[in-house]
Amino acid sequence: MMLRSTSRSRPVVALGIAMILLGGCASLGPTEHQHAHARELPSWRDGETRTAILEFVQRVTDVSSPDYVAPPERIAVFDNDGTLWSERPMYVQLAFALDRIAAAADEHPEWRTTEPFSFVLEGDLGGLASAGEHGIVEIVLATHAGTDTEKFRSTVADWLETARHPDTGRPYTEMVYQPMLELLEFLRANDFETWIVSGGGVDFMRVFAEEVYGIPTEQVIGSLGDLNYEVGPDGPRLLRLPGIAFIDDKAGKPIAIHRSIGRRPIAAFGNSDGDFEMLEWTTAGDGPRLGVYIHHTDAEREVAYDRTSSIGRLDRGLDEAGDRGWIVVDMAEDWTQVFKASPVEQLDGD
Amino acid sequence: MMLRSTSRSRPVVALGIAMILLGGCASLGPTEHQHAHARELPSWRDGETRTAILEFVQRVTDVSSPDYVAPPERIAVFDNDGTLWSERPMYVQLAFALDRIAAAADEHPEWRTTEPFSFVLEGDLGGLASAGEHGIVEIVLATHAGTDTEKFRSTVADWLETARHPDTGRPYTEMVYQPMLELLEFLRANDFETWIVSGGGVDFMRVFAEEVYGIPTEQVIGSLGDLNYEVGPDGPRLLRLPGIAFIDDKAGKPIAIHRSIGRRPIAAFGNSDGDFEMLEWTTAGDGPRLGVYIHHTDAEREVAYDRTSSIGRLDRGLDEAGDRGWIVVDMAEDWTQVFKASPVEQLDGD
Repeated sequence: MMLRSTSRSRPVVALGIAMILLGGCASLGPTEHQHAHARELPSWRDGETRTAILEFVQRVTDVSSPDYVAPPERIAVFDNDGTLWSERPMYVQLAFALDRIAAAADEHPEWRTTEPFSFVLEGDLGGLASAGEHGIVEIVLATHAGTDTEKFRSTVADWLETARHPDTGRPYTEMVYQPMLELLEFLRANDFETWIVSGGGVDFMRVFAEEVYGIPTEQVIGSLGDLNYEVGPDGPRLLRLPGIAFIDDKAGKPIAIHRSIGRRPIAAFGNSDGDFEMLEWTTAGDGPRLGVYIHHTDAEREVAYDRTSSIGRLDRGLDEAGDRGWIVVDMAEDWTQVFKASPVEQLDGD
Repeated sequence: MMLRSTSRSRPVVALGIAMILLGGCASLGPTEHQHAHARELPSWRDGETRTAILEFVQRVTDVSSPDYVAPPERIAVFDNDGTLWSERPMYVQLAFALDRIAAAADEHPEWRTTEPFSFVLEGDLGGLASAGEHGIVEIVLATHAGTDTEKFRSTVADWLETARHPDTGRPYTEMVYQPMLELLEFLRANDFETWIVSGGGVDFMRVFAEEVYGIPTEQVIGSLGDLNYEVGPDGPRLLRLPGIAFIDDKAGKPIAIHRSIGRRPIAAFGNSDGDFEMLEWTTAGDGPRLGVYIHHTDAEREVAYDRTSSIGRLDRGLDEAGDRGWIVVDMAEDWTQVFKASPVEQLDGD
C-alpha cells in the first residue's frame, strides 16, 4: 500500500521509495549478504523460547507450509503494562494520575474524604493497589472529566516529556523492553499487524505508542471512558466524562479484539492473569497459534514477581501454560538485555 | 509495509512484487502512458462535484502543496446504508432481520404481542420505520441473542447468497453504487485508508465489506451488541446478548471514530442527517477537509428522497451544506451509472 504511487504522475518517486525499502534494486547480492549476517531478535538468548518464536513465524510465512497464514490474518496482540514496558513500581498511567491529583487537589477538597482519591493524597499505595486497574481507570477518568480529548492528549504528552521513573530516573518511554521492541519489528517485517490490547486508557497509550512501539493509533485497543460530543462557539469537541464505558481486561480483551479487529489473532503476548482470556481466545482458533507469557523472573535487572503480586499477578497462567502449549518467557534467562538502551548507551554502542 | 521481504532469504520475491505493483521497474514510459489515458472516477460526470473531489485528493497528496497530508492521516470515513449501497425499500439489515423473525416466529409466540416484532409479523412496515435504526438494531440483536459470533457470521453469509432485492431481483451485494466503488478505490490508490462508519451492526457489515468494498474487517465501525465471553466444552466463544452496547449514529459517529481510529478523518461521506455530526467533526479539523453528502435525486434509476423520508432523512444537511462548504452529490446529474453492473453486464462491456 505504502509503495503505490501517490499520484499518477509520480511512478519515479514511488520506485525510488521502493528501492530504498528493498535495500537497493540493483544490489541484491549485498542485501542477501547483510540479511544472512543480521541475527533476528538479537536480545533474545539462543534457546527453546527464541527458537519457538522464530519457528512459528517461519511456519506461518512459508507459502509451501501447511501452516501458511495469509498476511491479513497475521494479527498479533500485545498487552502493554508489564509486557511491552515496566509496570513497576506502579502502572505508568497511575503515576500520571497521581501527579494530576496532586496538581489539582486544592480545587477538589472532596477528594480528601473520597476513595480512591484519599489513598493518593494520603500516600496509601497499598489501598491504591487494592483498587486494581479498575480503580486506576476511575482515577484517571475522574481527574480528566471536563477535559476534551485534544487537551488530554497534550497534557499526557507534556507529562511524558518531564516525568521520570522513580528508580532509574529515566523517562517512562525508555522503560520499554528491548527484546519486545525487536519482536514487534520482526513480526511487522513478516507482514504481521501488531496491536496493543491493554487495560490502560486508549487515549493515554496512543500518545506514545506510535513513536515508542511503531504502532499507529488505530491499532491501540484499551479501556474507554464515556465521551460527549458537544458543539460550542469554537466548534465541536469530544468531552471526557467521569464514567467508564469499557474495561479492556480479562474477558473484556477477547470482546474488544472482536469488536475492533473482527478477526481472531494468531499470536498473543501477555504477562498476567488479566491476559489469560486473550491468550485462551487466540490459541483456541484453528491452525497455528502462538500464546506467550512474559514471566518477570529478573530480580537484578528488573523486579521478580508473579503469583502473589497485586500488580501483574500471574498465577493461573503459570499453572496452565504447559498444558495449553503456551510459551513462558523467563526474562532472566531468555533476555540478554531487559530495557531499551538509553540514547547515550546507544551512541556508545555504535 | 506489504513490500517488505517476508523472510530474510526472499529479497528477489519482494522485488518481484514491487515491480508488479509499480507496473514494471523497467518500463516507466508505458506506465505513464496508461495512467494518462485512464480517466479517474469514470462513472462520475464532468462537473463541479467530480472536479472538487479530484482537486482535494490532488492537494493533499502533492508534497509541494501547503495542504499536503502525510499518508497515516489520510483517513476517509463512509456511511454505508444509502451512501455505499441502497437503503431502499428498507435497510438491508432489516430485510435480513425480517427473514430471521419469520423463520423463528414459531419458537417465539411472545413476538406476536411485542413491538417491534409484532410490526414485522403483521407486515406493518410503517410501524417498523418509526422504530428507526435503533429499532432495527434491537430486532437484529434480539433475533440472534444466544448465537455465537461465528454462527452469526455464517448465517449472514448464507442469507446474502440467496436473498434478493425485492425490486430488482439482484443480490443485495450488487446493489452498491458504482461511483462510490470507484471513489473507494481511487482514495486507496492515493494512500487513503477507507473506513466504514455506519449505524449498521458491525458483525453484519464485516461479512461482505472486504469482498464488496475492499475494506478489511478492522476498518469497519458499526453499532455494537453486548457480548459475553464463555468457555464451554468446545472451548471459548463470544455469545451475542440481546442488549445494545453502542449505537453508531449521529453524535455516536465522531465518538466511535475517536475510539476506533484515534485520528480525525480528513474526508467524510454520508447521505442523511445521521451523518451530520460525522461530517461536522471531520470538516472542523485544521487543514484541508472534505465533507460530502450523497443526495438521492434519481427517481428513475433509484428513488428520490430527502427531507421527509423516514429512511435516510436529509434535511438539516441540505440546509447547512452550502455554508459549511460541503459538497452535495446530485445522483441524477453527477453519476452516469448508479448501481454496479451485474456480472452479465460486465461481461458484455468487456
